[in-house]
This record gives sequence, structure tokens and C-alpha cells, in this order.
Amino acid sequence: GFRFDNLTHYVNSHEEEFVETLRTWVAVESDSSDIGKRSDLHRMMDLTAEKLRVIGGSVAMVDVGVQALANGSTIDLPKVVTAQFGSDPDKHTICIYGHVDVQPAKKEDGWETDPYQLTDINGNLYGRGASDNKAPVLAWIHTVEVYRALNIELPVNVKFLIEGMEETGSDGLDALIVAQRDTFFSDVDYIIISDCGWLSRRPAVTYGTRGNCYFFAEVSGPKKDLHSGVYGGTVVEPMTDLIGIMDKLISPSGEILIPGIREAVAALSDEEWKIYQDIDFDVERYKEDIGISELMYNNKVDLLAHRWRHPTVSIHGIEGAFSAPGTKTVIPAKVTGKFSIRQVPNMDPGVVERQVTDYLNAAFSKRKSPNKLNVTMVIGAKPWLADVNIPLYEAGRAAVRRVFDVEPDMIREGGTIPIAKTFEDVTGKSIIMLPIGGFDDGLHSQNEKISRYNYIEGTKLFISFLHEVSQIKKR
Amino acid sequence: GFRFDNLTHYVNSHEEEFVETLRTWVAVESDSSDIGKRSDLHRMMDLTAEKLRVIGGSVAMVDVGVQALANGSTIDLPKVVTAQFGSDPDKHTICIYGHVDVQPAKKEDGWETDPYQLTDINGNLYGRGASDNKAPVLAWIHTVEVYRALNIELPVNVKFLIEGMEETGSDGLDALIVAQRDTFFSDVDYIIISDCGWLSRRPAVTYGTRGNCYFFAEVSGPKKDLHSGVYGGTVVEPMTDLIGIMDKLISPSGEILIPGIREAVAALSDEEWKIYQDIDFDVERYKEDIGISELMYNNKVDLLAHRWRHPTVSIHGIEGAFSAPGTKTVIPAKVTGKFSIRQVPNMDPGVVERQVTDYLNAAFSKRKSPNKLNVTMVIGAKPWLADVNIPLYEAGRAAVRRVFDVEPDMIREGGTIPIAKTFEDVTGKSIIMLPIGGFDDGLHSQNEKISRYNYIEGTKLFISFLHEVSQIKKR
Ligand SMILES: [Zn+2]
Ligand SMILES: [Zn+2]
Ligand SMILES: [Zn+2]
Ligand SMILES: [Zn+2]
Repeated sequence: GFRFDNLTHYVNSHEEEFVETLRTWVAVESDSSDIGKRSDLHRMMDLTAEKLRVIGGSVAMVDVGVQALANGSTIDLPKVVTAQFGSDPDKHTICIYGHVDVQPAKKEDGWETDPYQLTDINGNLYGRGASDNKAPVLAWIHTVEVYRALNIELPVNVKFLIEGMEETGSDGLDALIVAQRDTFFSDVDYIIISDCGWLSRRPAVTYGTRGNCYFFAEVSGPKKDLHSGVYGGTVVEPMTDLIGIMDKLISPSGEILIPGIREAVAALSDEEWKIYQDIDFDVERYKEDIGISELMYNNKVDLLAHRWRHPTVSIHGIEGAFSAPGTKTVIPAKVTGKFSIRQVPNMDPGVVERQVTDYLNAAFSKRKSPNKLNVTMVIGAKPWLADVNIPLYEAGRAAVRRVFDVEPDMIREGGTIPIAKTFEDVTGKSIIMLPIGGFDDGLHSQNEKISRYNYIEGTKLFISFLHEVSQIKKR
Repeated sequence: GFRFDNLTHYVNSHEEEFVETLRTWVAVESDSSDIGKRSDLHRMMDLTAEKLRVIGGSVAMVDVGVQALANGSTIDLPKVVTAQFGSDPDKHTICIYGHVDVQPAKKEDGWETDPYQLTDINGNLYGRGASDNKAPVLAWIHTVEVYRALNIELPVNVKFLIEGMEETGSDGLDALIVAQRDTFFSDVDYIIISDCGWLSRRPAVTYGTRGNCYFFAEVSGPKKDLHSGVYGGTVVEPMTDLIGIMDKLISPSGEILIPGIREAVAALSDEEWKIYQDIDFDVERYKEDIGISELMYNNKVDLLAHRWRHPTVSIHGIEGAFSAPGTKTVIPAKVTGKFSIRQVPNMDPGVVERQVTDYLNAAFSKRKSPNKLNVTMVIGAKPWLADVNIPLYEAGRAAVRRVFDVEPDMIREGGTIPIAKTFEDVTGKSIIMLPIGGFDDGLHSQNEKISRYNYIEGTKLFISFLHEVSQIKKR
């Protein structure tokens, strides 16, 4: 039988130990976007492998090659950690995907605590990567650990695939999945991803994500930065050109101005509209959490639709311009605007790349500037959408019911977990996303956190989910 | 008599010593825009005072109070160093103004050498502040030092006024000039500024500068940065708003779009046109130095006019957005666009402040954004223009002829030396700018340098200038 109470009792009594492990992990500055922190990232992968070994996994650290840098040199990618617990052919095999790299974070960005020092404030554990994605990965590891500690046989075979480049586009992972399709993935039945959050205080199961096309628009002119007093008025400034073309991406009311993008988007069906209507979502609370007086859309359905199933343009920033506090009278010589377009069914990143490049080049050439524009798409991640009527999703719903005693919200994710689409395309396996992050965890933001509640109850959810999956009839 | 040869011989034989002193000064990171380097800046003022004391000056370090920071706290301003050499009422008294603070510089901005380690490459001395303004200040100090070393009486009384906040708007200096108008400045006949450069290889005398109004346009919305996947499409992004309004400042062809600005500008007279025609200026060489294929204007007169006597808008950068290498999927919560408008006769910074603020607020309100815009003018410096027909300017021209054996170009400066206008308004004294920086020194840019030639011959120019001033009839 399923000794759920024994298992959850163990989780409750080991809460402090689990928090301490998370503290150790958060302390590693595994920022994959900063090559200066690559050695921390390597250390993070080592820690992950070690943890999986200690609890009895057969662990491998898979070399996925090197990363090409802008200056033409290369740097080692972090190894991908795979692990296996059990190989009973009578059981289902699930593969847990997660990542242990993090977004950049600096105290001076506006963090109230040291981002790499896990800080408990009223039961919320603040730290970069706490919710995205270190605690969920640890919750999965603890799930296996709990079964083992209590000498209870795992109800399913469990594999892990943990990477360290998720935040910058999972460099090297696609190739690994393709290469191991007929080995590591051959006996996998289901792929589980817990790299997202709930929509409200109600637990959720996630069946879709937006993709993302991330662009660099580099405008270069003078061979070096110039003094705006000495040269201003005589040169065509790259910043003016860049601002000019980036202003053509999206209207004040949120309409994407690049021809062809909106036309490609799948129409909202009546059924989908109904799903959104049923979701527990408090628009006022959402506004309050963000701290703004007005949203782009003020009714629930429009808001959820524009969060999950419509594309949007975000301008993230400019590299090469003056960005420090204070004043500097500089004409930057080369500036790179960074923006991304969230992808939804039925958009195609290859087509979007061409649409954006053509559009910006045309807008730029109208300016008749002597500067040069170079548009590149540096990330092109497809959206993912699952069929929620398969047994895997019923297992997810049942696990939620057991632990939280409610029906989960069936939601989509506005963000991108690009690997979901790759898993689906390459392995043909079914994928489910089982989030344990809170709706207000502040992923990619200052003061990221996960609550003790979500971390600990989330572990119980995973324990319960293993059992539910084991109940699915073997084909 | 004027023992010019003895004096210049001394300069030649002490070149290495002068270069070493410059090396010591450049090594101090006296970046006035970075409050984290304030202690270096204080040390720089101490070094300056010490140097002036050693060569026999009566030196004072004048407390000019505190600087208000954005967070409401304050920090000590660097003291202003004043010095006096001689007080013979039968002689003219000149006051040398200079600054020893510098613009920001980091190796990774694209410097080929450590910006704070003076590096000699083929007779060019590379380092932040080398040309702006440490070498010219030292050349003036050495001028006095040489007279003293050779036991030759100074032909004029010499005062120094050296500040450490020039690069961020000379905080505290205006009040000092007002306060000491009837004391330190009461016996000053002429004010000399050497904080600019030549236009070509031909030495120049400068009779005008543009002013500068520097603006911060802060757009704030969400209370913290947001994940563009999770929130993109539902919030009105501050970056989109900021890009939208900054795109309305200037047209692709360089036309300022803010109503009233161009209308205020003094018309170009025939006489002025003639002066520009006579100036030694190679447009092709200028293009080559900048490294661009085409300028905003391609004939000499238009180009010089737009450099010196027309306003322009430069967008320097954005604070608060993502500015690092790599990718980050962030919606910045608060972004501050930084731009400046160069001021020329007959513009008035107070009027410009209102014109810009009204214009941007109107453009912003058309967007119907729930975000907030706050436009502030953080620097408002007037232009300065002198009468070149007074004896002071003949002294400048004569000094150039003696050292370089050519007639100087009579030029204006596109950049701002705001204190020139203040000196004129408060003290009523005549001002001359006597540059010794090279045309290609790269002020405010990567790889700033001064050549040994300009540093050493510049010192001789100042020696010669002291003599020429002594020849002006006392009123
Ligand atoms: Zn993640
Ligand atoms: Zn993430
Ligand atoms: Zn200067
Ligand atoms: Zn300067």
C-alpha cells in the first residue's frame, strides 16, 4: 500500500535539513549568463551530482561541449547531470527535468537581502534561484530520498536530467536529448517539469508554455565612444537610431507592429475561453502584487489570454550605452538593444526571425543613417501545448487533491521552458508540468523567494504524484 | 628681459619628471560621478594642494559643503583648491581654472590599456584624465615651477582655482565664486581656462563654448522588475514608454523636435560664416578619426556651425534596464533615460527645462500609460562667448606664435565649460581659453591620451603666455 502518512511525516520532521540544503545551493552563484561565474556553475553541477549519488542514484555527468563567445573564443559548458533510480521493467519510468543555473542578481539591483544568502523572513526563503529552480529540483531529490530513508520501494523508476544553462537557452541540451533518445530516454514514459509557479494560492497543473525569440539589434557607428559636447550635432548617433527602430516594435496599447506576427496566432476557441473563465484568478490581487494602477487588459479572460496565448514584445535593455547612476556626456559608439517576442501556437521562430529582421532593416534604412544595423536572434524557443485529457494529467490532478484537498487550476505558463517542446518533438513522450512555486515568488526579479510551505508541501505533492503515476495502466 | 630659452630648456630637460607626475595623478581614480570613489577624489584634491604648496604657493582647501544624493543622504564634496603666487599690485593677476576629477572609465568599456595606469605608446600618454584635465593643470603648475626653479620672477601674479566636480556639473563651485568675488577674485584681471583641445594639428585659442542641459526622464511602473514571460503582455512596460518618448526628441536627420528650441538660436552672421571658412579643418580627416562613412553635414562651415553654435540632442543611455552582456528576460520596473541638449546663444536653460518637460509630459500623456513619468534637469549650464578683439586674446595669439610659429585657429568648443559663464557673470572679468589638448585626445572616450608633444610644448605656451599678459598695459 501507499504509506503516504509515513512519507509526509518524514518530510515534516526533516524540514530544517531540507532548508539547509537549499541554503547551500542558493549560496552558489550559478549565474549561467555571466561567464565570469562559470566556475561556480561547474561547482553547482558537481554539488547536484554528489547529492544524487549520496541518495543512491547511478549518476553521470555528461559533457555537452563548449559555448562560443562573441569574441570568437569558447568556454566549457556546464556538464548535464543525469541520474537513475531503479530500472524495473514492470514499473513506469519518469524523467524529472530541472535546472540549477540562475538569473543574474546583484544586491544593488534592489534586493533587500543578499541574493546568494538564503534568508528566512516570516517563512519565506529569499534568494536567487530559490524558486527558479533550485527548491523544486531539491524537492524532487528529497522525494526519492524519503522513499529510500524509509526503505519504501519507489513506485516508479525515476530518472533525473538536470542542466545548468536553462536561463540562457539550454545550450547543448537539445543535442544531448537527440543523442540519448534511444538510450537514456528509451524507457522513459513521462517527462515531468517543475520549473514554473502557481497562478494563485490554489495549486496548479500546467499544460502549456509560451516560447521566446530573443533578439539583439546592434547599431554601430563611430569607432569609439565620443564626447557629446565635442561631436554632438555632427555625427548620426547610434543611440538615436536604435531608439528610433525599437520604438517601432510595439504600440502604446500593446499591439505588435511587426507585420505577420499577430496574423499567425491561433484563434481563441470557445472551449479555451471557458477554461479561462473557470480559473481562480484575482485581477485586483495581480495588480496589487505588481504594484500598478492599471493593466494592459482589465478582465480576467483577456488578461490570462495575453499572458499565455498571445505574443508580446518586451524591451529588456541596451548594452553599450551609459547605464550607471549619475551623468555621463557620452555618445556611445555601439549599442545593442535587447528585446524578445513571446511565441505562441502557431508561430514559428524561424519565420519570426525573418519578419523581425526584415522589418527592422526596412525601418532602419528609411532613416538613411550611415551607421550599421545588425539584427540577430540569439534564442528561438518554440511554445509547447499538451493534451490535458491523458492519464498523466489525471495523476497530476489526483496528487494535488490528495495533498491540498482541492482541484488544481489547469493553467498555462507565460514564460518559456523551451526544453518541453524539444522533449516532445524528439522523444515523443508525454510531458506534464507540476509547479510548486508560489504565484508571487518573483522569478527573475529582485527578492525571489519560495515559501517553506510551497517547498515542503511541494515535496509531498511529488511523493503523492509518484504513487498516482504508478497507478496508470501499463500499456 | 624674457628669458624664454632658459625657461624652455628647463622644460625640455625635465620632461620625464613631468610625465612621472602625470602618471601619479592619472593613477588616482578621481571619478566624480561615482560616489564609491569619493575617497580617491578627496586624495586627488590633497595631492593637488600639496603640489602647489611644494612650489611655494599660499594654498587653501575650501570646503564647499555636501552633495545631496538621490536617496536623501549627503556626501562631502571634494574641497576646492585655491593657490596664490605673488601679489605685486604693479603686475596683472591671472587666475588659472582647472579640474582634477575625471569621467568614468573601465577597462571593459573598450580601453586597450588600464585607464588608470598612464601608458606611453609612441609618445602618446594614454590614461583617463590625461588630457581632460590633469596634464593641462600640471602644465600650468609646471609653468610656475619653472620660473621658480630658475629664480626668475613671475611676470604676473598667478592664482589657481582647481576643483574636483567639473565632470558632474561643478557642484559647489558657483557658490564659492559668488562668496569670494570680493576677496579671492577682487584683484584678478584675467581668467584662463585650459580645459579643451585644438581643432587640428594647428594650435588654437578658444572664445566660446556650448552649454548643456542634462535631463533624466524616469518612467516607473511595477514595484519591482518582472519576468517577461510571466508578465509580458499584461503590463504596460516602462521601457516601451521611455523608448517611445525619447524617440520624439530628434529626427533621423538631426532636427530637434522639441518646439521652441531651434527658434531661440542666434542666427549665423556673415562675419561668423567667414571665420569658419578661414579655419584649418579637414572634414575627411575628422570622419576618419571618428571612423564613420558619413557625417550629419558634409561641408566645413555647416559642420563647424553644428559643432559649436547649434544645439543638439544626445541620448546617453538608460539606467535601470538590462545593460550587461548576454540575455535577461526582464521587464525593468523603473528606467531612467539620460539625454542632454547642448546650449548655444541665445538659449536659456530655464526655458529649455520647461520646453523639454512640457513636451515629454505631453508625449507621454498621449500614450495613456498607467506608468509615471518624471522629467528632471540635473545640469543646466549656459553657453559662453567672448569678444576676441581685446588685448587678452592678442596675448594668447602672440604666445602661440612664439612657441609654434603659426597663427592660431580662433575656435569655439562644442563641449561645455560651464564655469566660464559663471566667471563672466559673477566676476565681470575677461576669460580666455588656451587649450593644449590634441584634436584626437578622445576626451570622455575610451583610450583618452595626451601626447608628450602637447604636454611639453603646452607648458612652453603657458610660459610664453605669462610674459605676453605682462605686456598688456595696466589700466
Ligand atoms: Zn527556470
Ligand atoms: Zn528562469
Ligand atoms: Zn574637462
Ligand atoms: Zn570632461
